[in-house]
Amino acid sequence: MTRIVRLVIAFAVLIAAGTAIAQSDPLPSWNEHAAKGRIVAFVRAVTDPAGKDYVPPGDRIAVFDNDGALWSEQPAYFQLLFAIDRVKALAPKHPEWKTTQPFKAVFEGDMKALAASGEKGLLQLIMATHAGNTPEEFQATVKGWLATARHPRFKRPYTELVYQPMLELLAYLRASGFKTYIVSGGGIEFVRAWSEAVYGIPPEQVVGSSIKTKYEVRGGMPTLVRLAEIDFIDDKAGKPVGIHRHIGRRPIAAFGNSDGDFQMLEWVTAGPGARFGLILHHDDAEREYGYDRKSHIGRLERGLDEGAAARLDHRQHETRLAHGLPAGQPLTPPPRVERPSS
Amino acid sequence: MTRIVRLVIAFAVLIAAGTAIAQSDPLPSWNEHAAKGRIVAFVRAVTDPAGKDYVPPGDRIAVFDNDGALWSEQPAYFQLLFAIDRVKALAPKHPEWKTTQPFKAVFEGDMKALAASGEKGLLQLIMATHAGNTPEEFQATVKGWLATARHPRFKRPYTELVYQPMLELLAYLRASGFKTYIVSGGGIEFVRAWSEAVYGIPPEQVVGSSIKTKYEVRGGMPTLVRLAEIDFIDDKAGKPVGIHRHIGRRPIAAFGNSDGDFQMLEWVTAGPGARFGLILHHDDAEREYGYDRKSHIGRLERGLDEGAAARLDHRQHETRLAHGLPAGQPLTPPPRVERPSS
Repeated sequence: MTRIVRLVIAFAVLIAAGTAIAQSDPLPSWNEHAAKGRIVAFVRAVTDPAGKDYVPPGDRIAVFDNDGALWSEQPAYFQLLFAIDRVKALAPKHPEWKTTQPFKAVFEGDMKALAASGEKGLLQLIMATHAGNTPEEFQATVKGWLATARHPRFKRPYTELVYQPMLELLAYLRASGFKTYIVSGGGIEFVRAWSEAVYGIPPEQVVGSSIKTKYEVRGGMPTLVRLAEIDFIDDKAGKPVGIHRHIGRRPIAAFGNSDGDFQMLEWVTAGPGARFGLILHHDDAEREYGYDRKSHIGRLERGLDEGAAARLDHRQHETRLAHGLPAGQPLTPPPRVERPSS
Repeated sequence: MTRIVRLVIAFAVLIAAGTAIAQSDPLPSWNEHAAKGRIVAFVRAVTDPAGKDYVPPGDRIAVFDNDGALWSEQPAYFQLLFAIDRVKALAPKHPEWKTTQPFKAVFEGDMKALAASGEKGLLQLIMATHAGNTPEEFQATVKGWLATARHPRFKRPYTELVYQPMLELLAYLRASGFKTYIVSGGGIEFVRAWSEAVYGIPPEQVVGSSIKTKYEVRGGMPTLVRLAEIDFIDDKAGKPVGIHRHIGRRPIAAFGNSDGDFQMLEWVTAGPGARFGLILHHDDAEREYGYDRKSHIGRLERGLDEGAAARLDHRQHETRLAHGLPAGQPLTPPPRVERPSS
């Protein structure tokens, strides 16, 4: 029977990567002790060969959202800040941008006009700055930007604005035989440019949104070219689809922070056997950012309201199956929602 | 400077999986000693930390075509034989198929009419037998079929019609720190159903053609549903695209057998550093099948005619780069095409 451990945890601490992990405590930066205890209990349960919840190493797959879950997403998605800087860098080659939105808004620093350009404007920015190159060229551009760009508030490289507790979690899971994946609404090629250096996650373990690529032989050299055409949006209901496409089996643990991760968490935690789902709640405005229901970025509303209900639904369904009842039929009495952690 | 070792090898021996690999000889079934020597020399070169061709383990990625490269593809693609058997199994639910092509042709065993239905007919067969289920349901169907279906000539399960030399090669590469991937024109979900059991290749290391999937919550249970709509064709110029999508870096070795693998071989062997490309030539009609230029399945024509020329092109390009010449400019004299293996 499935054990769904879905929690909303208070979240904290913004420190650079690289701290060694103490043998005695795999998660030293976690000050939320209930959440930490559940993580450790879950990992022990799935790695104990004698236990009923044992999961063989090949099936120990954990998926992580990136923006707001592994690194910060405030005051705007870092990839958008990259696109804005690229528009400025490419401006000399595009005199027409001076008088065309959304580019004009970028030059004038007019975030209101930029926001008003909507999804269409955003897409124009992305295509103008992300397409028309090879994957190698694009990754080199991203790396060059990361080497010099600084976060407006913290004045540090974006790759240092990663969450220390989550780095510890990644390392702890890998040391416990898990394969760790990023499943990002952001661009797959953008994340691949630095995920191995920053998180220890290689390019083949990054799932993300993508533009199409085309194979061609240019001047005798075979190459791939990135096209100004959307291939896949890895967000919301797209996340389970993207995970299945890349991994081909359902992960047993998922970590997110916004409603864009709802379906991923729902799908992962509803699978058979031991499961773990975690939603990071950004509640520390002082050391990081405080946001949830009303944020324009990383909104967390459904997760707060429906997390427990979704969990109830799945458990009812399993109870129905165990009793041979048809799907959808209400149970009397309903199963207990709360359950002690393993 | 790149060393491209591209060879067309005489190919052999059809035996079941599972033979242990002798420590002294990693490729005991290979009777083509020149090819075997080049493989071993390549593997030694990229794994020698002191050598100029050393490749760190993370970049040791090898890609294998499946049909005709890892298992047989004669007298027809095994996945087509699966679709035909499924049409027969599903017939009672589809009385309309008795009078509609291409289904009528299947019931009447009329391979000529089936062939005449062309790509459109083939697609109808695939959609009718592959879509409308969850990935778990589809994989269970494939496994059930493999457990009972027998090859028309060899009267053995299809999963035993794998090439022993290639199983040895997969094991040898993995023992040398390579990650091995399948890159198939066949369906990704079809191959994932058995690739780990037969080749030791897990689902996340299978790249293939796919139909779209959709995420939905059915009767309270989150699930993925396979749709009757093409998502991606992983063949010819699609292979480099599929590899990039899944892996995100260029493999250093590729193994194929037909012109469907041409672009994959071309792209992989044109990368910088030590590279290895191999084309299996099916020339043993007695023990397996003999076919190449004129085969309706697994045609090998461009590979035989242009392999050496493509190799020349890339080497010219590199020489051009080394001399600071523009792409496309002919070199005088051209570089030697032949080169001793490393």
